[in-house]
Amino acid sequence: MTKKKIKVVQLGLGPVGCGIAKLMLQKSCLEIVGAIDLVFAGKDLGVVAGLGQNLGIIVSENANEVFKKTMPDIVVQATGSFLKKVYPQLETAVRAGINVVSTCEELSYPYRSQPVLSAQLDNLAKEHNVSILSTGVNPGFLMDAWPLAMTAVCQDVQEIRATRIQDAKPRRLPFQKKIGAGKTVAEFNQLVKEGTLRHMGLPESIAMIASAMKWELDDIKETIEPVIAQMRVQSAFLSVEPGQVSGVKQTGRGIKDGKDIIVLEFQAYLGAEDSFDAVSIIGTPNIETVIKGGTHGDLATIAMIVNAIPRVVDGKAGLLTMKDMPLVYTLMGNT
Amino acid sequence: MTKKKIKVVQLGLGPVGCGIAKLMLQKSCLEIVGAIDLVFAGKDLGVVAGLGQNLGIIVSENANEVFKKTMPDIVVQATGSFLKKVYPQLETAVRAGINVVSTCEELSYPYRSQPVLSAQLDNLAKEHNVSILSTGVNPGFLMDAWPLAMTAVCQDVQEIRATRIQDAKPRRLPFQKKIGAGKTVAEFNQLVKEGTLRHMGLPESIAMIASAMKWELDDIKETIEPVIAQMRVQSAFLSVEPGQVSGVKQTGRGIKDGKDIIVLEFQAYLGAEDSFDAVSIIGTPNIETVIKGGTHGDLATIAMIVNAIPRVVDGKAGLLTMKDMPLVYTLMGNT
Repeated sequence: MTKKKIKVVQLGLGPVGCGIAKLMLQKSCLEIVGAIDLVFAGKDLGVVAGLGQNLGIIVSENANEVFKKTMPDIVVQATGSFLKKVYPQLETAVRAGINVVSTCEELSYPYRSQPVLSAQLDNLAKEHNVSILSTGVNPGFLMDAWPLAMTAVCQDVQEIRATRIQDAKPRRLPFQKKIGAGKTVAEFNQLVKEGTLRHMGLPESIAMIASAMKWELDDIKETIEPVIAQMRVQSAFLSVEPGQVSGVKQTGRGIKDGKDIIVLEFQAYLGAEDSFDAVSIIGTPNIETVIKGGTHGDLATIAMIVNAIPRVVDGKAGLLTMKDMPLVYTLMGNT
Repeated sequence: MTKKKIKVVQLGLGPVGCGIAKLMLQKSCLEIVGAIDLVFAGKDLGVVAGLGQNLGIIVSENANEVFKKTMPDIVVQATGSFLKKVYPQLETAVRAGINVVSTCEELSYPYRSQPVLSAQLDNLAKEHNVSILSTGVNPGFLMDAWPLAMTAVCQDVQEIRATRIQDAKPRRLPFQKKIGAGKTVAEFNQLVKEGTLRHMGLPESIAMIASAMKWELDDIKETIEPVIAQMRVQSAFLSVEPGQVSGVKQTGRGIKDGKDIIVLEFQAYLGAEDSFDAVSIIGTPNIETVIKGGTHGDLATIAMIVNAIPRVVDGKAGLLTMKDMPLVYTLMGNT
């Protein structure tokens, strides 16, 4: 890590992008030199991020112009979940010789679902001598990097399970909507059918674990079911009646020789009594580990992205994934 | 990681060294090409390691000869806890152009206690383009790499605590003796005074965490107290009467501005009811995480060493520590 400040451009100013920008402002080793967003172009980043003051950084809609003018070390991309959608932005940054850390879930381990695009992006990054990493709390930590890190003390592993049970009450309204809270079962199933109700990243986490464990999977399967409210539950934003959907239970399974050897279970609903994250490893020895009370999704995703910045700037050229990153820990040095 | 097998020499054939050798024999990506030990020189490694069969690898007492003859990629050193003691062995390996992974506790983060030797070793390793890493379960994971890994999801950290409570009953006799089980309090205190009763590694783990968190500590303090048996406790090897010592409680504290901001507590005694490992982070957000039932020390140390081998072989030249290693996970590929 250099002593010089790392120059960062923030690309995408939704709630997570704004959270990232706010956290970066607190880190003395980082300097935000630009911001890009289509919706907020022309406004000051400080106002958009809700700081109530100008930062002298005017949000632009022209990435190329910002990159040329500010010559950042890294771009933080928080614009979308699908690699195809964010690919043109990645390409612009890479061709400008800028490293990228991204929240794009599919990019967290894209080799299985997007082998062609992944190889293309990896080559492009190597050609321009920059690193690209997508991370976050999940995918990026709770269901891939964390379970893998815990296998360090195992001599052998037969099975890996990760479970994330979340009470969605304290989360943002977009999150509560995303998990189907307040919908009827028919509406929920329709949203699942349309592909709009889906936590992104389980197949990516499964593929990352399988790759690290050298397990050749027969298949990766995913199911999405509604959690039905047994009694009335309320959040600050929503009220869910008995029989309505309070959230989602989504399960990803990595199957080898007909057996589920990787099982990732994600439950997020209003009124979950016991929030926790857990990893269970069947191996030598077995490992049962829990994060009590769970992990606050928004805080943690923002943290992961910001904490990973120096590792990406110093990383090998190419498309990186969390399974091969040097240890990421809290980036200290607050102003 | 290359497809070629990694050629390994095992240096030191105590219980941990033998365990490492046995595990390496199960990994198809590793090939043991030699073994060095003063006590068992002339015997076959398979017999020494308790396999009940010859491996055709005769234990030698001459490291230089073994290195020249076998040209290994890496040496696994399991010979001692103090850097000064193992330094000559490290030097021999490094000068022969061989990477080293070591169980030496002081070497896990030696920059604070041995700044001169550390710099010397780092320079020597860089000069010969090899990597050196010391790891294990503790130091190496439970009280340094694991807590640091968990801070990845934190935006800020104020305090880190790691607690390891172990029932020593299932451990080896040397371990039970090491923690003072069966001694009187006077004998225990005498052993502490002589420096022979001490779990090695707490100051190293504290220094590693502090370095990662950019905390400039005023001091690192360590206390060692006996745990007194309230009733008779027995292991397969020992019997402890009420009033005698059943084990040890050792605490390491990293102090900044008069405050304990890193607290590592290690308790190992016969009859501990609830074995567990825990990490508690005061930060944004707080993280409380537990490994239920704890982590089997011998199995885990052996696993860490073997799992780290490919990372050390592929690592940057120099003296490495766990805080900057790429993610270590179970090395799969069993025969």
